[in-house]
Amino acid sequence: MAHIPLGDDLPGITSLFRYRPETARPLSELAEVLLRGESPLSRGERELIAAYVSAQNDCRYCYSSHAAFAAAQLPEGTEPVGDVCADPSSASISAKMKALLEIAAAVREGGKSVSDEHVAAARAEGATDVEIHDVVLIAAAFCMFNRYVDGLGAFTPDDPAAYEAMADRVVRFGYASSLTGPR
Amino acid sequence: MAHIPLGDDLPGITSLFRYRPETARPLSELAEVLLRGESPLSRGERELIAAYVSAQNDCRYCYSSHAAFAAAQLPEGTEPVGDVCADPSSASISAKMKALLEIAAAVREGGKSVSDEHVAAARAEGATDVEIHDVVLIAAAFCMFNRYVDGLGAFTPDDPAAYEAMADRVVRFGYASSLTGPR
Repeated sequence: MAHIPLGDDLPGITSLFRYRPETARPLSELAEVLLRGESPLSRGERELIAAYVSAQNDCRYCYSSHAAFAAAQLPEGTEPVGDVCADPSSASISAKMKALLEIAAAVREGGKSVSDEHVAAARAEGATDVEIHDVVLIAAAFCMFNRYVDGLGAFTPDDPAAYEAMADRVVRFGYASSLTGPR
Repeated sequence: MAHIPLGDDLPGITSLFRYRPETARPLSELAEVLLRGESPLSRGERELIAAYVSAQNDCRYCYSSHAAFAAAQLPEGTEPVGDVCADPSSASISAKMKALLEIAAAVREGGKSVSDEHVAAARAEGATDVEIHDVVLIAAAFCMFNRYVDGLGAFTPDDPAAYEAMADRVVRFGYASSLTGPR
């Protein structure tokens, strides 16, 4: 049950976007630029980081949606997503992605938890400065989105088909489509 | 020492905004809308919430800057800011603001920490739905900004005059001025 009257027809952050369109615009633009704009990390990799942080923060709506967005855009499909969220160290992803996910896990704990050693380990696997920047900001941003959705008790669908429909929309039309809700 | 080459001439988030202007734009727009746009909470009250969450997250740059922005915009000036960040329950602020800061503290722990009781307590002191929305999003957003600044080790000035100069700029020109750095 949501803490403020969000209606029960839109799920998760889309109900919050409708409730407060003033803040919805920069939030959806941030998601668009950060997860789909120019970056040395692929869209699938960035969604995987978002899903991983959301899983760690126990935000079922954000995890389910970004896991679906990752699966729809990673060449390997669904398999690495569940594996990464269970245990990145044993998942079939690159050593660089494992090191970046360790940075994401540190950011989730708190900014000061990111150590020189975390950054050096990612660089040793070939991570660039922009990749390090982007993983820190993606992890930080999902510490916001997760708290926004669960802090207001937004509706979280149980049916996986709801998240697949969202993935279809976001992959085709981008995050600006979240401002208008499901088509 | 920053984890990526941010230069040493700009402090905190302004160095990150220069480093990655693509994400700087929606981030500074979010700060502008959330902290200075239309809201039933005053600009000073919203900056006080931002300073409180930043103090709890031990982000010295964000705390020092938003404490200065709060002091510059609250009718009571500097006094309530330090008191609130030390212990909101004994600070000379309204009962409604105390209840909203309890919601902010819960959001900081995690979205699921916000209980029906937190929300009912704020409503009993006269908080509206939009105020409850805004305090949740401000607290969530500073869980992002704090992690972004400290996760990349951005430069944190020691001199209080640096934050007073920022306060003068933000109060006069808004957060878009953070995109171009100090004047």
